[in-house]
Amino acid sequence: MSGAVHVLGVGIAPFGKFPDAALTALARPALVAAMADAGIGPGDVDAVACGTARTGMLQRRESGVGQLVAWDVGIRRVPVYNVKAYCASGAAALSLAQMAIASGRHDVVLVVGLEQLSARAGRGRPITSDGMEIEGDIGFSPPAYFGMVANRHQELYGTTREQMAAVAVKNRAAGARNPIAQYADRLSVDQVLGAPRVAEPLGLFDCCPTGDGAAAAVLGSDAALARLGGRRAVRLAACVHVAGGYDNHDLTTFPSDVQAVGAAYEEAGVGPAEIDVAEVHDAFTIAEIVHYEDLGLCAKGEGGAFAESPRAASVNPSGGLLSRGHPLGATGVAQAVELVTQLRGEAGPRQVEGAKVGLAHVAGGFMEGDVASSAISVFVR
Amino acid sequence: MSGAVHVLGVGIAPFGKFPDAALTALARPALVAAMADAGIGPGDVDAVACGTARTGMLQRRESGVGQLVAWDVGIRRVPVYNVKAYCASGAAALSLAQMAIASGRHDVVLVVGLEQLSARAGRGRPITSDGMEIEGDIGFSPPAYFGMVANRHQELYGTTREQMAAVAVKNRAAGARNPIAQYADRLSVDQVLGAPRVAEPLGLFDCCPTGDGAAAAVLGSDAALARLGGRRAVRLAACVHVAGGYDNHDLTTFPSDVQAVGAAYEEAGVGPAEIDVAEVHDAFTIAEIVHYEDLGLCAKGEGGAFAESPRAASVNPSGGLLSRGHPLGATGVAQAVELVTQLRGEAGPRQVEGAKVGLAHVAGGFMEGDVASSAISVFVR
Repeated sequence: MSGAVHVLGVGIAPFGKFPDAALTALARPALVAAMADAGIGPGDVDAVACGTARTGMLQRRESGVGQLVAWDVGIRRVPVYNVKAYCASGAAALSLAQMAIASGRHDVVLVVGLEQLSARAGRGRPITSDGMEIEGDIGFSPPAYFGMVANRHQELYGTTREQMAAVAVKNRAAGARNPIAQYADRLSVDQVLGAPRVAEPLGLFDCCPTGDGAAAAVLGSDAALARLGGRRAVRLAACVHVAGGYDNHDLTTFPSDVQAVGAAYEEAGVGPAEIDVAEVHDAFTIAEIVHYEDLGLCAKGEGGAFAESPRAASVNPSGGLLSRGHPLGATGVAQAVELVTQLRGEAGPRQVEGAKVGLAHVAGGFMEGDVASSAISVFVR
Repeated sequence: MSGAVHVLGVGIAPFGKFPDAALTALARPALVAAMADAGIGPGDVDAVACGTARTGMLQRRESGVGQLVAWDVGIRRVPVYNVKAYCASGAAALSLAQMAIASGRHDVVLVVGLEQLSARAGRGRPITSDGMEIEGDIGFSPPAYFGMVANRHQELYGTTREQMAAVAVKNRAAGARNPIAQYADRLSVDQVLGAPRVAEPLGLFDCCPTGDGAAAAVLGSDAALARLGGRRAVRLAACVHVAGGYDNHDLTTFPSDVQAVGAAYEEAGVGPAEIDVAEVHDAFTIAEIVHYEDLGLCAKGEGGAFAESPRAASVNPSGGLLSRGHPLGATGVAQAVELVTQLRGEAGPRQVEGAKVGLAHVAGGFMEGDVASSAISVFVR
């Protein structure tokens, strides 16, 4: 990549369920906050990258969401790229913005991730990956898949239900310190273990909620950083997105994650030992445990023990998907917001002390080998 | 932009109505042909950019179309970017691919544009821009808007129905020489003028059809060109995409087109006088006339006369949307296929002699000032 790419500002609004909100109303606070944080106005934005996964099917806005929300905050006559990659949509928008800047075409790109899963149009319909309707109808939804992952991880590595519960307890505690999290209440191990079963062995609190939300980030080139000032800028040192075509015969690993994180470590010039803080795709408690391993934060099979170790506190300080929530397209950008806030030392009661290097991970298009997407970003202060 | 971007190969399959075809079956011939034309295999592709506008709403494949069609032809474990920009979706994918290469991230990017408007899921539903359901229900669909454009152009500039009909006659004659065109039959001026009225003064043959189709192109860096050989490569000298926020008080011009083409001429270092061949967004006959003017191919108000002049034969030699057809996401890439074929001198009976510089133009998100998209590409042999 030619030239560095910096995060000049970030913004996010409370996640939750806002079925009657317009998409513009959901996005506006995040966009306004990100521009204010970067010290720029709408006229400074050269291009917009917008990640959403489901707005066509849920809100009948398939092509034009980015234009709509950008126009709403006063951005005019710039390229708007709407990108879609399942749960990795927000991260794909971040990747596109990085390329747009590194190519020399654009100087300041506003990235927005957005989703409204509670919207009326979707009520009564299962929310699963595209093209998975048949599987969903027979019950093979994401919780069922991750239930299988959990069973297999238990069988191979002796991972316990208490270790899975530790992830939920940790992330709900973190979310309780994050004012924009969908859930503000903590949970005990007993509450997690005693919750209604969703897909054996996973219970209700092992599964992330659906919800609505938006997050935004302003990315800029070296020239933009110099021009706009960037005392608090954080460098986007790597941004890798891969998809598709995995023949996965092992339920306890995600090959696209392994490929993407390897490339990202190489691009950023860091290894897993240097990661001070991470946001990972904890759609399920067992998923976070598998991700520890695939990302190299611990050895294969040791994810359960890692979940109960002190180092796990540096993973998902935002509360993650389990607590902050998971409005699909918003998640990848929300992770960037959290990491930039952490690396600036501005995370208040949830600050990971002294964090200099942060890693974000999202995975999308679950279990469909042909379409699974993984995205890894590395941020360096 | 740092470094040149080249079109190493192109492919397209017949456009038409194939309501029972799978998306993979629609895309496959175009992808296979583009890779064969470039002399590469699936393993040579570093990334995929896929433009579609409606697959979420029509086929319930919103996020994963690019992965699906890439996987089908053997492409594995690369980034796949699905981009959406109404009728400009294919051109937005081309723009993304250009940035991906110019950024240094990718060497060989496969671009695909795809749409299946005749699919069962969409039967009985009007096909108009996102968020336009209310306007569509009261009859304010694209033909109605372009009917107003035609009325105003007639009033201001004395443009005649015969001049509009000349566009349809010309493009249907061109399509009759293009084996992949949706329509293979010619029309006379009398047939166009005598056709059933759709929206006064426009008749049936003033309006492009809906349909299905796919087109593909392989883009590469200087290094890829050197490595793969590129005797027939064509340079993508400019690719500009803009969207949104136009306050348009003049029905006879599209400000986003004027902005985009100005930027594209500057980027490519050419002016309208150097354009030997053009593919423009002739969704309606009057649209092509307005585009002549906005693109600088003739002076304001002279588009009607231009339509009847010999120079008009160098616009839409493929048959354009009116004859080749308009599967939304496919159109922008189909234009690239035609121009590359023309600049190589391989267009057979529809060859524009000696063409060295080609321009492609698409416009999307009609009349919605907040979301309208324009994309201009310039190709140089």
